[in-house]
Amino acid sequence: MKTAKVAFQGERGSFSEEAAYKLLGKRVRVIPCETFASTFRAVSRGKANCCLVPIENTLAGSIYENYDHLLEYRLQIIGEVNLRIVHNLIAFAGTTLASCCKVYSHPVALAQCTRFFSKHRKIEKIPFYDTAGSVKMLAEKKIKGGAGIASRVAAAHYKGRILRTHLEDHRENYTRFLLLSKSKKSIPKANKTSLVFSTRNIPGALFKCLSVFALREIDLTKIESRPLRGRPWEYLFYVDFAGHRDDEKSKNALAHLGEVVNFLRVLGCYKSASRI
Amino acid sequence: MKTAKVAFQGERGSFSEEAAYKLLGKRVRVIPCETFASTFRAVSRGKANCCLVPIENTLAGSIYENYDHLLEYRLQIIGEVNLRIVHNLIAFAGTTLASCCKVYSHPVALAQCTRFFSKHRKIEKIPFYDTAGSVKMLAEKKIKGGAGIASRVAAAHYKGRILRTHLEDHRENYTRFLLLSKSKKSIPKANKTSLVFSTRNIPGALFKCLSVFALREIDLTKIESRPLRGRPWEYLFYVDFAGHRDDEKSKNALAHLGEVVNFLRVLGCYKSASRI
Repeated sequence: MKTAKVAFQGERGSFSEEAAYKLLGKRVRVIPCETFASTFRAVSRGKANCCLVPIENTLAGSIYENYDHLLEYRLQIIGEVNLRIVHNLIAFAGTTLASCCKVYSHPVALAQCTRFFSKHRKIEKIPFYDTAGSVKMLAEKKIKGGAGIASRVAAAHYKGRILRTHLEDHRENYTRFLLLSKSKKSIPKANKTSLVFSTRNIPGALFKCLSVFALREIDLTKIESRPLRGRPWEYLFYVDFAGHRDDEKSKNALAHLGEVVNFLRVLGCYKSASRI
Repeated sequence: MKTAKVAFQGERGSFSEEAAYKLLGKRVRVIPCETFASTFRAVSRGKANCCLVPIENTLAGSIYENYDHLLEYRLQIIGEVNLRIVHNLIAFAGTTLASCCKVYSHPVALAQCTRFFSKHRKIEKIPFYDTAGSVKMLAEKKIKGGAGIASRVAAAHYKGRILRTHLEDHRENYTRFLLLSKSKKSIPKANKTSLVFSTRNIPGALFKCLSVFALREIDLTKIESRPLRGRPWEYLFYVDFAGHRDDEKSKNALAHLGEVVNFLRVLGCYKSASRI
């Protein structure tokens, strides 16, 4: 994967870029994309070998849009990585913490740093479209007293100075990213499988689906539901379980699941990330 | 409830207001609030008797923020209503469909009317903060050739003209709203119960929780997960089931659930809405 081209959503220096380096090493070529949909499309159209997209954050919850894209774009999950989200205050030229009066960042990042702002009441919070994008803008415009909140990769990329680190209120702030490609090759040391299914409209349908795992002592690590479009009040379920899809137990569970659902697709089988 | 004061998020004429009339009749007093959080606060601080908030849409999925507020504000669910979302093109004065060149609305509403815009390629889509807010703005500013996309309640409230109805791509577009209050009085004809729990961190935990319902043939109508803050990769589950919380079967199921979870709270017991 040394020269892999990896697409991600956001400006250069985003948390997705930081996660890409953590999972794939520093030598990957990165392709920033404007939206999540265009990130998936970059792979399906062959502009990138793979893409890395956030799927859940331990404070904010799932990134539901990307669950929907998993279904639509039919890419395979080939890896995952968990990144601790550390918010840094980044400025340029003469701006110090004492002279800082305006802080730009994505609204979610600003909302995750409330303690910093209540300690520094003179600093104005200014919502911006992107964390790394705020640092990029400051690098260009050199706004006096301005700083951004973003990843340390953003500070390095735009040559900004980190005035303070760990601005986030909760240290238990992690984002899980999925690595996706068109390739269906099997992954060495794969030990986790993701799938999506829709239940039949019968009583206890979800319970029956989960029983195919529980009765075989297969651990589920995540379950997420999304609406089934065109079928009001029916749902798709996205499930991750511990195990290779070709293990005897998993194969039996998947065959059993096939008997009780309307629709089933395996989204990928990959090496699980360390939890933190 | 004839003179109940009902808080909702959005401008006058929002879909929430339309849902309030459907559930409570035309004689309620409505209190528009800026955010979902301030809608919940209006009730907890006694400014409103109840509030009506959207909890899920059949195309876009759950309104996750409101699941989080259900936990935080400790209001009781006392009712629900399903509203079909019909998007109307609303204009003022001399603007007709032929002379319309700019359409303002919330980005989600604009995204749900793609077929209309591909048939009328000369019309520019302009994102606005609120559906009803776009009609309010046009009523004030009388922008030439401008129209908004919003509910028929918005057209009536701001005295706009409906140029075309059913702009939405999918007819199967419904939003479910919950009615919340501080009162813990029991509701006549209640037949549905909502609760939230967190599982123990053991294999098959969710399966054990769902078994307390399945083994008693209690139907679940919805399950939603949200992250447990401060406990990375652990989750809260929100479940709705068919039945009164004080039925023999439900009481046993809830007692049984209490044995296998870390945390359990009943969010309300209320009369279920017709599905469409």
